[in-house]
Amino acid sequence: MFEQDESKNIDSILIQIWIDLGHGALKGRHPYHTPVLATQGENGPDARTVVLREADFTRRRLISHTDIRSPKVRDLRRHQSVAWLFYDRGGNTQLRILGSARVLHNDERARERWEASAARSRECYRAALAPSTPASSPTPPQPLECGFENFAVIDCQVESVDWLYLQHSGHLRARFTWQDDQWQSSWLAP
Amino acid sequence: MFEQDESKNIDSILIQIWIDLGHGALKGRHPYHTPVLATQGENGPDARTVVLREADFTRRRLISHTDIRSPKVRDLRRHQSVAWLFYDRGGNTQLRILGSARVLHNDERARERWEASAARSRECYRAALAPSTPASSPTPPQPLECGFENFAVIDCQVESVDWLYLQHSGHLRARFTWQDDQWQSSWLAP
Repeated sequence: MFEQDESKNIDSILIQIWIDLGHGALKGRHPYHTPVLATQGENGPDARTVVLREADFTRRRLISHTDIRSPKVRDLRRHQSVAWLFYDRGGNTQLRILGSARVLHNDERARERWEASAARSRECYRAALAPSTPASSPTPPQPLECGFENFAVIDCQVESVDWLYLQHSGHLRARFTWQDDQWQSSWLAP
Repeated sequence: MFEQDESKNIDSILIQIWIDLGHGALKGRHPYHTPVLATQGENGPDARTVVLREADFTRRRLISHTDIRSPKVRDLRRHQSVAWLFYDRGGNTQLRILGSARVLHNDERARERWEASAARSRECYRAALAPSTPASSPTPPQPLECGFENFAVIDCQVESVDWLYLQHSGHLRARFTWQDDQWQSSWLAP
């Protein structure tokens, strides 16, 4: 959580953002656990809730998992640019993160993450019907044997972080951009 | 809220969605009050939390307000396609809505909405600095006199609604698309 007495130290805000993102990845009840990921679809933007699986400050990475058959994989293969939206209503904070994402599938890193994931998380990859396929009834057919073949990792390199802190005495907003191999920071008008 | 005994009646789901959106527009504490709006920016998608001001089933409209100086207005003037993401964690429901948005500014409809909006909502349009402008400090300069000149309405016509209901016994998902002057519905694989 952002502490108000840090409001004038812009660099400490970025550290706190990544600490909070790390908590979001680890804790299922954290508001940052389920951000919105926006991609560029064929006819315009698209957006859906995803689960944040990892946030790595030093590598500037945000990681999520998906089904290789889902439409967002097709989007990501055409356009790598993505936007993440994290919103902590209780903490009065919004993060808008832009980055570039690639899809890892059927390789060593995907295998590592598959092995480390919980059995319950793996279940959805066993669905016989690809996500978003039209279906004649809401009841799914028999699941597949394994699921790893459908498991994919969305690996996003972060390029900018836009932080907004809402408060009655006047909102605070700052932007952090990765330029020339370092983070550049600036206050923004909210 | 979605009632489980309606799960087999796909058309009643669409009605309930619009009822819930209507509540979201009216009630500040409703989870649908602050959806994410994704637009297509110059270099990829962008996303931010907005306030839902109106949801009109018969006109298939979702309405939000914004500052005419904000970057999303520039985005919307280039690309009308938008994606909305509504997420009700307690109600286990996600709505993904695609549509086409236009910006109303300085016209009769904008004036009507301005007159009807609360004094506190109008405050932010009086900011002397345009939203997203880099600033040397987090403290804002003196506000403008009025604000109506910066007030704009995002008027979105809905083209499709993707409804996802999360439950342990198997998620439910349905899509509603406006085609041939009516809503077409289909179950989807979650």
